[in-house]
Amino acid sequence: MVVNQQQYRTIWHESNLNDAGVVSKVVRVIDQTQLPHAFEVLFISNLSQMVEAIKTMQVRGAPLIGAAAAYGIALATQEDASDASLERAAGHLLRSRPTAVNLRWAVERMLGVLSLQTVEVRSELAWIEATLICDEDVSLNQAIGAHGLGILRQLHASQSRTINVLTHCNAGWLATVDFGTALAPIYAAHDAGLSVHVWVSETRPRNQGASLTAWELGQHGVAHTVITDNAGGHLIQQGLVDIVIVGADRVTITGDVCNKIGTYLKALAAYQGDCAGRRVPFYVAAPTPTIDWTIEDGIRDIEIEERAAEELIGMVGRLKDGRVATVNILPEGTQVLNPAFDVTPAKWITGIITEHGVFAPHQLHGLRGRT
Amino acid sequence: MVVNQQQYRTIWHESNLNDAGVVSKVVRVIDQTQLPHAFEVLFISNLSQMVEAIKTMQVRGAPLIGAAAAYGIALATQEDASDASLERAAGHLLRSRPTAVNLRWAVERMLGVLSLQTVEVRSELAWIEATLICDEDVSLNQAIGAHGLGILRQLHASQSRTINVLTHCNAGWLATVDFGTALAPIYAAHDAGLSVHVWVSETRPRNQGASLTAWELGQHGVAHTVITDNAGGHLIQQGLVDIVIVGADRVTITGDVCNKIGTYLKALAAYQGDCAGRRVPFYVAAPTPTIDWTIEDGIRDIEIEERAAEELIGMVGRLKDGRVATVNILPEGTQVLNPAFDVTPAKWITGIITEHGVFAPHQLHGLRGRT
Repeated sequence: MVVNQQQYRTIWHESNLNDAGVVSKVVRVIDQTQLPHAFEVLFISNLSQMVEAIKTMQVRGAPLIGAAAAYGIALATQEDASDASLERAAGHLLRSRPTAVNLRWAVERMLGVLSLQTVEVRSELAWIEATLICDEDVSLNQAIGAHGLGILRQLHASQSRTINVLTHCNAGWLATVDFGTALAPIYAAHDAGLSVHVWVSETRPRNQGASLTAWELGQHGVAHTVITDNAGGHLIQQGLVDIVIVGADRVTITGDVCNKIGTYLKALAAYQGDCAGRRVPFYVAAPTPTIDWTIEDGIRDIEIEERAAEELIGMVGRLKDGRVATVNILPEGTQVLNPAFDVTPAKWITGIITEHGVFAPHQLHGLRGRT
Repeated sequence: MVVNQQQYRTIWHESNLNDAGVVSKVVRVIDQTQLPHAFEVLFISNLSQMVEAIKTMQVRGAPLIGAAAAYGIALATQEDASDASLERAAGHLLRSRPTAVNLRWAVERMLGVLSLQTVEVRSELAWIEATLICDEDVSLNQAIGAHGLGILRQLHASQSRTINVLTHCNAGWLATVDFGTALAPIYAAHDAGLSVHVWVSETRPRNQGASLTAWELGQHGVAHTVITDNAGGHLIQQGLVDIVIVGADRVTITGDVCNKIGTYLKALAAYQGDCAGRRVPFYVAAPTPTIDWTIEDGIRDIEIEERAAEELIGMVGRLKDGRVATVNILPEGTQVLNPAFDVTPAKWITGIITEHGVFAPHQLHGLRGRT
């Protein structure tokens, strides 16, 4: 993705020569807690910094968390590549965010590769494998973009006007290594000259729609309008939404989708459709590493992360003088509950856009052998 | 309602002796744009101040807007009680907020009463009629509280534990002259010793849940927890909500309900119920002045007010040092759409709690003669 005329991924690594003349590797990530107010690229030089960056959501988005976790293992091997060290690192990373399955997938893949090798070569291999996970994520998302573009082309052919896509949270470039999941088809459509407009759901409490999706769509020149999370149902009812596309933090083998809190409500509204009874298709864009092959009932079996009350209480923004500040919007001492995700049962979902193509939720299990 | 050990209504009038020795009347209102950060009572001494207070939502909530409009007419008569002046005042008030029907109802009632009288006595009668509208609102809401209490008692009897009520926006004391509509049954239950807990939906973009409902429930000592608007569906799915009660800005004769944006999504989720398939009852508390007897199709025929983008862009809160400030949460120049209300079709609504009792949406038309 291009930011200020420069090509970026959300995560990469660099070699660093320290004062003692020793070369080590550091990971660079865009600090997503600073957007849209500032564009800052962090240095992450050890495992605990990476765990902290994941916990505080400086890096976030299921695919990107997977890549970050892979790099976390690579950072750990730089200090100690023993089995014990790898197990410890894996534990820290797995506990940092409980819901996204890509994190577990990436950690298990890294440990699977490294445990077969001698301790001496593990660190070098870890950086290679983490890089491979990043490159693969880019390819998966490009494929999702191509498959999703097919859906948007069909809609465009039947409507002959701008296609209005509603999305939630940020499942864009910033949620992945590049291109995004839910936004990949939108970027592909825009680049192919299709007229597309995106309704960006604010996504309280952390405003990833308002602060990240609006920002990255703006950087790419895609037409978009920010709405409150409350407005999605009304717009669908009024016939102002042609398709809903969201990302996922975990998809079950049966096609239940765990995604940012509020996704479920949009799925219900899309299923009801507009006031003339026309259903609005509801798609989930997710690469296969987001599929949890071990879970059949998403509502019963997916752990929903509860995050700090401060996320809801404190709102970050720019003051009139341009300084970034946090304001407290609640009465003092108000109790808050802040679940970060919800589960949309498969029955409300039109299709899952994967790197292998578009599937109805009940067809997902057939993909198992292919990943 | 009691605030800081003092009994308050949201609106009342006082006599004022000015420097020239002339006695005139002024209206006092609680400035709801300052809550929960400050409790301030405004002086409103002419029509244009009242129109501005309604537009800027210093006074808001369908029943309170009705009372405020009645006082607006009374203020207008103080300067000029001619037919032309009354018509002009009515026009200004009717244009101030297009969706809530109580405003039109109150203005038409005031003009109906005053137009039968000579110009000389109109002002005195206007203050009497406006006061009567306020007193009636209090009675209507007490009756709604009593009828709603019956529903909560039944739930309590069948569950024998704390009843969890989900509400949206503020349909409490602050939205009316006193007691509230949706919150009236909750206050009645609390005062009757029933154990009740309220899930308070934040209600973006103006946060009336987080800033007003949380504040007034806190003043009254009712247990409550603030959640994002996105979280309502998840809580319902998890079985953590026993009943949804919301207010209304306009109810059609067929039982469609126009209320704060986001209400429709909650109704859909309540109808789906919890993951075991148990539906959650969805009630709308509304006095009969909120019913628009002229409209049959709420989606087609109710004008939905679009409010300024700034409501979504700028978030008001307290800085660390206690000062109240507004922060801009969006990337510079982002386009915004801000519809203030949505329409929930009658089929998703369990019942309407009116001052005459609880009715299924299709029974509402039978109330027409009784108001």
